[in-house]
Amino acid sequence: MANRIITISRQFGSGGRTIGKLLGEQLGIPCYDNELIEKLAEESGCDKKYIAEQGEYASHSNWFVNAFSTGRSAHPSNQDYLWSIQRKIILRLAEQESCVIVGRCADYILREKTDCLRVFIHADMEKRAERIVKLYGESDVSPEKRLRDKDKRRSAYYRFYTDTEWGLAEQYHITLDSGALGIEKCVEILAKLY
Amino acid sequence: MANRIITISRQFGSGGRTIGKLLGEQLGIPCYDNELIEKLAEESGCDKKYIAEQGEYASHSNWFVNAFSTGRSAHPSNQDYLWSIQRKIILRLAEQESCVIVGRCADYILREKTDCLRVFIHADMEKRAERIVKLYGESDVSPEKRLRDKDKRRSAYYRFYTDTEWGLAEQYHITLDSGALGIEKCVEILAKLY
Repeated sequence: MANRIITISRQFGSGGRTIGKLLGEQLGIPCYDNELIEKLAEESGCDKKYIAEQGEYASHSNWFVNAFSTGRSAHPSNQDYLWSIQRKIILRLAEQESCVIVGRCADYILREKTDCLRVFIHADMEKRAERIVKLYGESDVSPEKRLRDKDKRRSAYYRFYTDTEWGLAEQYHITLDSGALGIEKCVEILAKLY
Repeated sequence: MANRIITISRQFGSGGRTIGKLLGEQLGIPCYDNELIEKLAEESGCDKKYIAEQGEYASHSNWFVNAFSTGRSAHPSNQDYLWSIQRKIILRLAEQESCVIVGRCADYILREKTDCLRVFIHADMEKRAERIVKLYGESDVSPEKRLRDKDKRRSAYYRFYTDTEWGLAEQYHITLDSGALGIEKCVEILAKLY
């Protein structure tokens, strides 16, 4: 039987990663999130912290340029290098086994694969702010500002590498508001759909 | 117990109306779609066909203006007149009873109501083209062009009256690809969520 993949794109702080983990456990298939970073570190020779940041977010210095760029420059950046390895790893994973993959434009990378359920998880600002303070603690910057910054850079990264918009309903088979519906309900719906 | 409302926004040809009807039947609550047009006709004194067109689509002549307008003009148009009656009817329905309401910016009009599940239904161009040809027959204009035109005008109408984007995942509690998941599966998921 062909592998069946679930990709989960998510707003920062929406609990998309937790949903992926719980879903993987419930379905008895692996969920790749940090594991993907480890694989990337291994194959690229880059530092994990660097990958976590560069493999999904437009850099602080260039998100503005990325946001308005319509294509990639002739000179591949470190981010382009990471993107190409990331792409290869995700395609390989999808070949190897049924799994859940969180973030990293996997929805786009696997867009030609028929048996792939594309999911987007989001929640309102208040719920996400509550969640990131609980998970990552307070910081000098307000949680709202942290969320807006992360969203902006994630969306710019996505647009840059995929030429499509992040968070548009029509890109996904299903999108869920985890703040209103609750994490468990989201897992339940997705497990049923699988 | 307070009324519980489901609003269904939908791309043209995605089967959102059918999903609303089936969902209403399954839950034993009314689904307002054409019924809304009849109520509007009654209260506005306008023709039903005119309402079906003007109560949800930016007019052909002014969709371009609407699309780039940031607010309403000082002179209310017929469309503004219809909008205000439509708004009143939808608010009244939500006060009166639990129900499903299809289209007509009901999601926006009822945005302050806590017990309202906001749904968006979409499908890819191919599936929708197939569906509208089956439902409404062929015409001189290609189904793809008909769909693009309807989407554009619905989205311009929505933007004009709500100042927000139509079809952005984060505006809805759940969005579903009816083409990939199938109409029945969509109804099942929504009935469970209610």
